[in-house]
Parts: sequence; structure tokens; C-alpha cells
Amino acid sequence: MRFTSEQRLDDGVLEREFTLGEIPGVLWTPGSAPAPLILIGHNGGLHKRHPRLVARARHYAAEYGFAAAAIDAPGHGARPRSAVDEQARADLRRAMQAGEPVDEIVDAFLVPLVERAVPEWRTTLDALLELPEIGGPVGYEGMTAIGTRLATVEPRISAAVFFAGGFVPGTLREAARQVTIPLQFLLQWDDEGMERQPTLDLFDAFGTREKTLHANLGGHAGTPWFEVDDAARFLARHLK
Amino acid sequence: MRFTSEQRLDDGVLEREFTLGEIPGVLWTPGSAPAPLILIGHNGGLHKRHPRLVARARHYAAEYGFAAAAIDAPGHGARPRSAVDEQARADLRRAMQAGEPVDEIVDAFLVPLVERAVPEWRTTLDALLELPEIGGPVGYEGMTAIGTRLATVEPRISAAVFFAGGFVPGTLREAARQVTIPLQFLLQWDDEGMERQPTLDLFDAFGTREKTLHANLGGHAGTPWFEVDDAARFLARHLK
Repeated sequence: MRFTSEQRLDDGVLEREFTLGEIPGVLWTPGSAPAPLILIGHNGGLHKRHPRLVARARHYAAEYGFAAAAIDAPGHGARPRSAVDEQARADLRRAMQAGEPVDEIVDAFLVPLVERAVPEWRTTLDALLELPEIGGPVGYEGMTAIGTRLATVEPRISAAVFFAGGFVPGTLREAARQVTIPLQFLLQWDDEGMERQPTLDLFDAFGTREKTLHANLGGHAGTPWFEVDDAARFLARHLK
Repeated sequence: MRFTSEQRLDDGVLEREFTLGEIPGVLWTPGSAPAPLILIGHNGGLHKRHPRLVARARHYAAEYGFAAAAIDAPGHGARPRSAVDEQARADLRRAMQAGEPVDEIVDAFLVPLVERAVPEWRTTLDALLELPEIGGPVGYEGMTAIGTRLATVEPRISAAVFFAGGFVPGTLREAARQVTIPLQFLLQWDDEGMERQPTLDLFDAFGTREKTLHANLGGHAGTPWFEVDDAARFLARHLK
């Protein structure tokens, strides 16, 4: 893990960009004492393109004493895109413009993305846990598809907050049954790209006995800010 | 309003029983400074029979500085039961033992109960708001049917936490459309006496733009304790 930039933010949080092999990422830490860690999973680009992700990470660090980390998924953000990635994007754009169903295209795109992202998260976690300012335990917060798969293979993740949204592939429902850690599952009641019932069925499918659904009105990007505090308190309950 | 007993509890909360005409109630206050008020609605008997209600009221007062009040609904708790009340109870017991559908019986029981309970809550609120240790604003926490109807007619209630459960009468769905205050709606995912879909439809029906659904695994009485803190923080956000 090589740090490529370092910035002390006005809330006292230290923000550092890093690379780990091909993986670019960002780490936010509240201080020098070992802190529990939140992995923030997003399929899109990194922090510069996602001010809401950065705001959450800084809030977790500044207000709740968590370390937080995000990485670019393969083919996203600053990372090179393969011909397959480009084709999937073009197909998706064309189908959306034509008003055609996008489930199969998303499925074809999402499943391989998750399979590539999960080992990278595990490698990143190995490196992060060697830093003296990271003390474990570890939680996950973010995209459901990556987080679900990660939770089934990575025993160091103790609790997770998932943001629902979009098409639910059959492979995701299957993986959900194997998840046994405490979960908070966030659903936007009027999500433009999501059917409500398959998402409620996904909540139902998670194998854990301790899971809470939080549903709020509004579209995909409209999760209210108070849910960030709810997520932090949920993770604090299970990680501290 | 006549106080009939007074007890300082070990968490510093003052618990007083009162009567207001025919209405028996309990008031919990955190101190002498004017506190915002939570009305705790329950269709069943009062505090002696509902340790969870008492625990919530004391927690709101001791940890969050709210005053909290509960009253016995007509025909419940310490109050005399009419022949109609007794008949409805007997019908319900018989139907449940026979494994017959209870929706119509509950409907016949619940609708008049709500119509009798709501004016009593308003009378109680009038009296409570005259006490120097109650400073308003006012929130509601508890049974959905009473709280929904109360919220449609009582402008002094600024926010509400509803516990879902049981049959959803058509009159309740209609009333829900008229509710415009911020809501937190608690649903037990495996509630023995509740069908999930009509309850999700009820959440959908509430006319307010600021509503959050919290669903947890487990049966009707299994709401996790952390939801009490979530309710208090939600009410604090809107009442303080």
C-alpha cells in the first residue's frame, strides 16, 4: 500500500489517497489511535466524483471515531475500462434511451463486477489492517451487491449497512441467504431504478437473524442525511 | 386533572398517576423545567400491565428529557367494560380459538374504540399542557390506529412514531392519507397477527412526505430495544 497524497481536513480527519497494486483508494482516519474500520463500497468512481460518499466517510471519522476506506471498483473511476466494460455501458445507455428493459444488461454487467471487486476488497482489507491506526473490527457500508458477496466470504466483516437499489440478480438473492452478520438495509421507497417487491424479498432473503430495514420516501439518491447517523450508530453498536 | 400517586424513581424520573374525569393516566416527567411531551398510545391496559410501555416512558424521560404520558383507553385497563366491549372480547377469543378469521371482529371493535379514545387524548392533552413542567411541542408514540386518527384532528401533535400490527381497517387507511406530520413507522417483519402487505400499503398511504419505515425481524412483541432510542432521536429531531 502506497500513499500518494495526504491532507488534513478542517474537521481534523486525515484523508490519504493510496494505491495497492492496480487498486486506487482513499483512507480517512480520525487520529492515531487504532480505530474500527468501515469499508465504503460503491460501484462507481472514487471520492472526487462522489461528494456524498466523501461526506459520509468524513462524518464517520470526525463524529464517530471510525476509520473509513473506499476503493475504485474495476473499470470504474480512475481505472482503465476493458472492451467488455465499454460494451456493457454502451448497451445500458442504448437500452435506457430506447426505454427497453435493462435487467439482463445490468445482470451481465453486475455479476462479473462483483466477482472482480470482492477479492480486491479483501486484499485492501489485508493491507489496511496492518496500519497501526486501524484497530478492527470491520464493518461495511454501501452497495448491496458487492457487500453481500463480500460478507459471505470475508469473516473479518462483523456488520453491514446496505443501500438497496436497482435490479436484484438471482445470484445476489442466493448470496443473501448465506449472510449471517447483523445488517441495516436502506431502501428508497420511490427509487427510479428499483422495483420495490424484489428488494423487500431480498431483505427477507438475508440469512441473518438481526436485520433492520429502513425505508424512506424519495428517489435513489435521496437517502436522508439522518440515515448516515443511524448507520454510524448501528455500526458502533456492533463494532465497538 | 387530579394526581392520585407520586413516586420518584431511581433514575430520577417523577412518576405520577392521575385521573381526569373518567380517564386514568400516568405522567412521567424528567424535572421541573418545561419539557416536550410524548403521548404514549396503547389500546391495552395501563402501566402496571405493560412493563415495556413503562420502560419506554422512563427511558424517554431519563435519557432524553421528555415528559411522557399514557392513559387507559375506554374499556381497557382499570376502566369499566361495557357489554359491547365484553361481547367483542368474547367473540374475538372464540374466533381465535376456532382458528376463524378475526378481521371483521377486530374492525367492529377497533373503530369505535378509536372514536372514543381520540377525544379523551385531546382532553388529556389540554390538561397536560397547563402543567408548568410540560412545555410542548408534542409527539405521539404507540398504537397506529389511535395515533393516526389523533394526528388528523389534533394540530398540536408535531411528529409521531407508530407501532404497526394487526388488521388494517379501511377507515385507518383513509385517515392515514390525511396525516401530514413527520412519521417513523415500526413494523415487526414476522408479526403473528399482521399481514405484511396491507401494513406496507398503510405506510405507503400516509400523506406525509417525511416518513421512515423501520422493519425488524421477530413477532409483535419483539421490537428491539434500540428502536426506543431511534424513536427518541426521531422525536427529539422534530420536537426540540
